[in-house]
Amino acid sequence: MRCCVLGGGGFIGINLARHLLTKGHEVRVFGRASVIAPPLPGVVTMVGDFADADAVREAVRDQDVVFHLVGAANPVMAENEKIVDIQENVVNSINLLECCREGMFGRLVFLSSGGTVYGVQPPVPINEDAPQWPICSYGVVKATIERYLHLYEHLHAVDYRIARLSNPFGEYQVARKGQGLVATLLRCAVRNEAIRIVGDGTTVRDYVYIQDAVDALCRIASHAGAERVFNIGTGIGYSVIDLIGMVEDVADTPIRREYLPPRPIDVPVNILDVSRATRHLAWHHRTPIDLALRHSLAWMRSWLGAN
Amino acid sequence: MRCCVLGGGGFIGINLARHLLTKGHEVRVFGRASVIAPPLPGVVTMVGDFADADAVREAVRDQDVVFHLVGAANPVMAENEKIVDIQENVVNSINLLECCREGMFGRLVFLSSGGTVYGVQPPVPINEDAPQWPICSYGVVKATIERYLHLYEHLHAVDYRIARLSNPFGEYQVARKGQGLVATLLRCAVRNEAIRIVGDGTTVRDYVYIQDAVDALCRIASHAGAERVFNIGTGIGYSVIDLIGMVEDVADTPIRREYLPPRPIDVPVNILDVSRATRHLAWHHRTPIDLALRHSLAWMRSWLGAN
Repeated sequence: MRCCVLGGGGFIGINLARHLLTKGHEVRVFGRASVIAPPLPGVVTMVGDFADADAVREAVRDQDVVFHLVGAANPVMAENEKIVDIQENVVNSINLLECCREGMFGRLVFLSSGGTVYGVQPPVPINEDAPQWPICSYGVVKATIERYLHLYEHLHAVDYRIARLSNPFGEYQVARKGQGLVATLLRCAVRNEAIRIVGDGTTVRDYVYIQDAVDALCRIASHAGAERVFNIGTGIGYSVIDLIGMVEDVADTPIRREYLPPRPIDVPVNILDVSRATRHLAWHHRTPIDLALRHSLAWMRSWLGAN
Repeated sequence: MRCCVLGGGGFIGINLARHLLTKGHEVRVFGRASVIAPPLPGVVTMVGDFADADAVREAVRDQDVVFHLVGAANPVMAENEKIVDIQENVVNSINLLECCREGMFGRLVFLSSGGTVYGVQPPVPINEDAPQWPICSYGVVKATIERYLHLYEHLHAVDYRIARLSNPFGEYQVARKGQGLVATLLRCAVRNEAIRIVGDGTTVRDYVYIQDAVDALCRIASHAGAERVFNIGTGIGYSVIDLIGMVEDVADTPIRREYLPPRPIDVPVNILDVSRATRHLAWHHRTPIDLALRHSLAWMRSWLGAN
């Protein structure tokens, strides 16, 4: 397949491009110049901004699959700049859908957020048909883009799939811009820094290793069935406190803790029901969390050694 | 109560302002100058555009309830101008929520669309917890604004209610801009014009008389319970063909029929489950459809006589 990864210079994009390459696909990535990794040999790298419609058109032209990974950097930024987030992400996603409608490329795979689009949902695990009442703008924007995909399929036969990813972690996740508890913990362990815990550390999330996650995205790209939306996670929940303990074990060092006030944009518990992905993609997470943490720690050590 | 009706110069706004006045409330209306009715005595009329944030702030200041009736003129216009619709309606609704967050007014009552936010939903009648996958942009924008209301309550304790109105008809609904099958039929009957039917006439809708609908909006404004979202309709479905027959009976004249191709943005059936409104607002539609059609016909005759 000819694959284009929009937002290819970030944590998920880098891993996805590498995975697609190992599977024998033709890969091009489009996005801002990556500060995390140099251009990957064998991958066509196109530097540009998602708001530049002409550049996006050039990137997606004649691709079999376009992975849309572009989004606000993190929920806090999206919250503070709600209107910018709508303009940059909803509006530009509609422009991308117009390209697909015109037949410029085949399938659109949109990376949505399993951690935010559902809002507060008892009971867990949450399946794909649960109502969507996000408690952060980041989630509202993701849910809105999902709806435009559905609309464009209905009106214009656009071919799409949605991956609602839980909390991914692993290689190339650098601990910055508030992204990624695991990366932050690994950094704290390596650098002997204190972890700043938002709230009391009881919030539970579904952490999925990035190598497993990109395997799921790749399967979604060639999925032939009737389903359109897939939760991608492990179905297992760990609290912040749990995770600190696991990283302490793997790194063999204690991590000091500082507590910050809780944020209203964080749901208390998020665990995804991933049975649809298991049934229709023959996918489930394969990497045990301690092994995934060891791989991630090794990468973080080498990253911090060089940066 | 001090009430402000945003979008007060349109069909629903005019009827709502009149109803609020008869209930003894202080009423101001804000919006473009009405082409349907002169300013109502006893109502403060403020002419302005929803995009003018300063004018909106002036209009909503110190009000107990703000009714937000502003939206795209109709689904076809919203479809053709998706990005404009987002900018005019989603973005300006966030600006309005910011006013509420700042304590400039009390409750926000948002007029959503029971006819479009659900998309294609077997089975009917549709209750408020049904998934929302609209098949027109108009519905996506309404569903998105609903989510920002929920978000602002969660983050900033904004007080809101949502009315998902089915297809209203009655006095002050003029047959233009593709709005309102009933008004169009009444006009055809009075003027002896042919009705242009989109599709084969089997699409079913839940038609509610505007006097009943504004009574519901008024009850929602003072609702004290935990519910936030209310379907407002009759729970009864009529096809286009059914309705033509009823208007022919009431007007005592046959209506010629012309058929146009179906539109993909129209759901085949939409009937709302209104049991929540009955239970929590002690509301249900009271006016039998033949009586409502007679009132509407009388108004249409006088309107067409004068215009």
